Amino acid sequence: MNQSEHTTTWKQLNDHLAEWVLASKAHTADGHVASYIPELANASADVLGICIMDMDGNTVAAGDTGYHFTLQSISKVFTLILALMDNGEEIVFSKVGMEPTGDDFNSMLKLELVEPGIPFNPLINAGAIAISSLIAGNTPAEQIERILAFFRNIADNPALDINKDVFKSESDTAHRNRSLAYFLKDNGVLDQEVDDVLRVYFSHCSIQVNCTDLARMALVLAHNGVDPIRNQRLIPRRFVQIAKTFMFTCGMYNASGEFAMNVGLPAKSGVSGSILTMVPRRYGIGLVSPALNRKGNSTAGVHLLGKLSQEFDWSLF
Amino acid sequence: MNQSEHTTTWKQLNDHLAEWVLASKAHTADGHVASYIPELANASADVLGICIMDMDGNTVAAGDTGYHFTLQSISKVFTLILALMDNGEEIVFSKVGMEPTGDDFNSMLKLELVEPGIPFNPLINAGAIAISSLIAGNTPAEQIERILAFFRNIADNPALDINKDVFKSESDTAHRNRSLAYFLKDNGVLDQEVDDVLRVYFSHCSIQVNCTDLARMALVLAHNGVDPIRNQRLIPRRFVQIAKTFMFTCGMYNASGEFAMNVGLPAKSGVSGSILTMVPRRYGIGLVSPALNRKGNSTAGVHLLGKLSQEFDWSLF
Amino acid sequence: MNQSEHTTTWKQLNDHLAEWVLASKAHTADGHVASYIPELANASADVLGICIMDMDGNTVAAGDTGYHFTLQSISKVFTLILALMDNGEEIVFSKVGMEPTGDDFNSMLKLELVEPGIPFNPLINAGAIAISSLIAGNTPAEQIERILAFFRNIADNPALDINKDVFKSESDTAHRNRSLAYFLKDNGVLDQEVDDVLRVYFSHCSIQVNCTDLARMALVLAHNGVDPIRNQRLIPRRFVQIAKTFMFTCGMYNASGEFAMNVGLPAKSGVSGSILTMVPRRYGIGLVSPALNRKGNSTAGVHLLGKLSQEFDWSLF
Amino acid sequence: MNQSEHTTTWKQLNDHLAEWVLASKAHTADGHVASYIPELANASADVLGICIMDMDGNTVAAGDTGYHFTLQSISKVFTLILALMDNGEEIVFSKVGMEPTGDDFNSMLKLELVEPGIPFNPLINAGAIAISSLIAGNTPAEQIERILAFFRNIADNPALDINKDVFKSESDTAHRNRSLAYFLKDNGVLDQEVDDVLRVYFSHCSIQVNCTDLARMALVLAHNGVDPIRNQRLIPRRFVQIAKTFMFTCGMYNASGEFAMNVGLPAKSGVSGSILTMVPRRYGIGLVSPALNRKGNSTAGVHLLGKLSQEFDWSLF
Repeated sequence: MNQSEHTTTWKQLNDHLAEWVLASKAHTADGHVASYIPELANASADVLGICIMDMDGNTVAAGDTGYHFTLQSISKVFTLILALMDNGEEIVFSKVGMEPTGDDFNSMLKLELVEPGIPFNPLINAGAIAISSLIAGNTPAEQIERILAFFRNIADNPALDINKDVFKSESDTAHRNRSLAYFLKDNGVLDQEVDDVLRVYFSHCSIQVNCTDLARMALVLAHNGVDPIRNQRLIPRRFVQIAKTFMFTCGMYNASGEFAMNVGLPAKSGVSGSILTMVPRRYGIGLVSPALNRKGNSTAGVHLLGKLSQEFDWSLF
Repeated sequence: MNQSEHTTTWKQLNDHLAEWVLASKAHTADGHVASYIPELANASADVLGICIMDMDGNTVAAGDTGYHFTLQSISKVFTLILALMDNGEEIVFSKVGMEPTGDDFNSMLKLELVEPGIPFNPLINAGAIAISSLIAGNTPAEQIERILAFFRNIADNPALDINKDVFKSESDTAHRNRSLAYFLKDNGVLDQEVDDVLRVYFSHCSIQVNCTDLARMALVLAHNGVDPIRNQRLIPRRFVQIAKTFMFTCGMYNASGEFAMNVGLPAKSGVSGSILTMVPRRYGIGLVSPALNRKGNSTAGVHLLGKLSQEFDWSLF
Repeated sequence: MNQSEHTTTWKQLNDHLAEWVLASKAHTADGHVASYIPELANASADVLGICIMDMDGNTVAAGDTGYHFTLQSISKVFTLILALMDNGEEIVFSKVGMEPTGDDFNSMLKLELVEPGIPFNPLINAGAIAISSLIAGNTPAEQIERILAFFRNIADNPALDINKDVFKSESDTAHRNRSLAYFLKDNGVLDQEVDDVLRVYFSHCSIQVNCTDLARMALVLAHNGVDPIRNQRLIPRRFVQIAKTFMFTCGMYNASGEFAMNVGLPAKSGVSGSILTMVPRRYGIGLVSPALNRKGNSTAGVHLLGKLSQEFDWSLF
Repeated sequence: MNQSEHTTTWKQLNDHLAEWVLASKAHTADGHVASYIPELANASADVLGICIMDMDGNTVAAGDTGYHFTLQSISKVFTLILALMDNGEEIVFSKVGMEPTGDDFNSMLKLELVEPGIPFNPLINAGAIAISSLIAGNTPAEQIERILAFFRNIADNPALDINKDVFKSESDTAHRNRSLAYFLKDNGVLDQEVDDVLRVYFSHCSIQVNCTDLARMALVLAHNGVDPIRNQRLIPRRFVQIAKTFMFTCGMYNASGEFAMNVGLPAKSGVSGSILTMVPRRYGIGLVSPALNRKGNSTAGVHLLGKLSQEFDWSLF
């Protein structure tokens, strides 16, 4: 995309984003708010908000842009990056694999069936738990501080913090994640204690943001680790490359293939109904719409991104 | 079996059991002591002891009969019975199924794959954990007391107690069982807290016995719930029927079919290398030999029971 | 059971069987006729017939006793026996295992997941196909002749024959069985060509009988391989022992455990709605009622056998 | 990539490709020639040849460029495209899904476990068989002719033809593919007869090419369906987009994620040791090296492409 393409795109976005959001909002009726964490079940089913940020920090936004939500699985992209920065590729990929699974995000099948019993990739729950245990720090509190500092830096927002109610709700009810973590412990994947690693995991899942924060974080990935606004490298390029590759192949749970075909951008969704995506070398995009399809992705969000990708020919292929 | 058959059998056992034990002992070399619980790994690999008890309490014993060991999975037969006595069939079978699985005893596959996500039977780990939660009592301590009292009564041995070292070793290391328990919790199978139910579960697995205790306990099952020595009904017949049916179809982990074909008696094994079996209406049998085959059953024990079954035509079929 | 018990039982059966059949018949409404083979879909959903035969050949029968049906999976018990007679245990159990699976009768999961990729037992479809290939004979036609001769001898009915319409219907539509057979071929389990072994398999599944034939065949198993009427050994006792053990642990598909607990007799069901069972050393029993539950067993048939087992305390345990 | 970058790259390739091929050739020792099709087992384990073609048809080639081989799974990319051209997206994606599986290319697990029992994507064997049945034509012969004509056009090589020996070898031995096809038939995925669809499938897998053919075919995909040499649209852009997305997420069997991370280009491998890949909008690349790793990809080929991608920063991310 050159400058004149950008100008055209930006004008179109300014002219039409609100109406496209309205059209996509109808699709919230096809989904259901996540119910497995009580605090998430309180989300508003008919919300849809989106923010698109260019490399100068200009934004086009539409819909419920003031809505706050927790990162949930979107955090996994950035803890992966931090774990890579803290440990290097070799250690990280001794604990998690590189392959999509085709299974549900909380599945344990492959841990039992496929040697050597490590999570297939860092974006499914099992893999993200393993990654949480790799964040540097002598205590869970230190690890959490380190994660917060990193996320605040990427988002350029020192006010980012953990939503304590969501954290507590997750800790109290996430029996399946505990089950996954103990399985990993049994398979020798976790050195840390299960309670400690889950405290770290639930903490980063519970970091509260809004669409603008997401777009800001995405912008850094879109520019391969350099923050184009502060003109500062925040992440080594190779680790962004790794993260974006995983986002493309596994970022939308086991609907990643469908998203790749219909949108064609690296993306990561969370069960809060949030999606972080980007137009490489150009825009950071954050959206939220809590009504989910049965694969765990925002119905209206997926629809809206499909529309944008088609309109502006954003697919990588 | 009539009285004269018994006389002949008993004489043969007295004459030959020691030599048969010696012959089977060679098969300890084909197995390995369980290593997944550190305390169990200390077991002596070449031990083999057996005790056979008739309805008057006479015994024939051979080999390392003084050897002490923990019940491990054998306890599951008696907690199942106690849970049935405490709750009745309907409640118990709303929490566990009635089918063999063909999977490893600690497998989680069917919990994830087969609706409604309850353990297939009460003798696999997942099922036995669910059963532990059904034992009456307001606290884990009360449940454990109740179990101990019941086991002591069945074994007619008020000295039966928990081996604290094994209990601690199990609690500290059984990550897979914790994983199973949290999965069950997530599937709505457990009302109790996971830590509480596992405390109960590890406690009954850690009750220490010897071969004579096992034979004494088996004798009560052999006589359909009546202790023939004290001439007292200890268990309703229907619940013994249920227990023996499960022992026949699922008692020897996923080698139960092979055992049914080659021995043909209801039996339950434990990873301590122990086996409890019986000749219905006649003998209670307890044995121990810690070297296990890869299905988790005592190599020498299975061999010795095959020999006895063949010699005396004990198979039910 | 002694003679006076027999007299009492027989009188009761004569007095009450018709009314029990009537009561169980109501349960046909809970099931559905098998639809996966077109010719089977023509079966009458509300039929229920039963025949019980004592060792002198006397029968008590009730319900739709004139109804004809094909053996379907019941044939697997007798082809297993014939394969054992033709090859011995060692060869047979190099091709099939001895364990219940917990999976559907036509499942392929364990063939792919569990080394060495042989069927878990001879009564699931995969196992029965492997067994068919072991029947002696230079051609499928010879094998089929040999099976027919054996079945006619066991049933003492030289008129037993293949229902050509059912055979054709099975051959034309059993894609899943073809899939299983090619998988077995790929795993090195079948030496024979797939088309040939399936011709044999579909042939024995399509042998037509009535309840009296089933009861007659069961009687030979009840007497451990000796036909008590002709006073002639037809099967070595060991092979009957093997067959009855499998019937007990795997005979009712993946509801075998439940049947063992509620009826407690060795049995085999077929998707024609037929069940062959026996009271060991006493009666042969054959019944048919085409409406099946979702595990593939006759709803009314299972109910009726539960009633009889309870009434006469027939459970082995 | 602009013109001056191209000039630099091209010079580098001319200067170094031969030495890079030599270095990668050492990795043939880590792999094994495919043995499951007898005719493939005759391949030379230490071959490595590569051809890179620019948009004017200029080539840089090195190694065993005269080596001939069959397309095997690479053909699946082009039959997918042809099926899309013949049927449109809606029909094609009613028969196959869009998701990576994480399972082996010939796995049947998800067909049994995941509703609605259609192949997860068109590049695993099950999916490619389903796709073969969608090629227009009244007979297998017509379908095969249509495929040949299409492939010849894409490769701009009217001499492309089926290697009859490989075809025969595949037909005779591919029991697993027959098993897959009958499973699909049973699940209602195939309208065509299994023998007919497999004839089509084995035919396109057996089309013989060399590296230059592969590079030529890849060039058309690199240019989104337009042949830049003849300046002619051969494939609608959307269908190339679909094909390239699948190549990126599922093209290298269940090592696609690893390849995406280390090479970062859309690619498809075949068990002949071949790989077709491309630098979008720039180069078509074909290579062959028959020694495979355990995931079924050419060891030396993957190494060489990693080297090239790193050297020229070709990764899409």
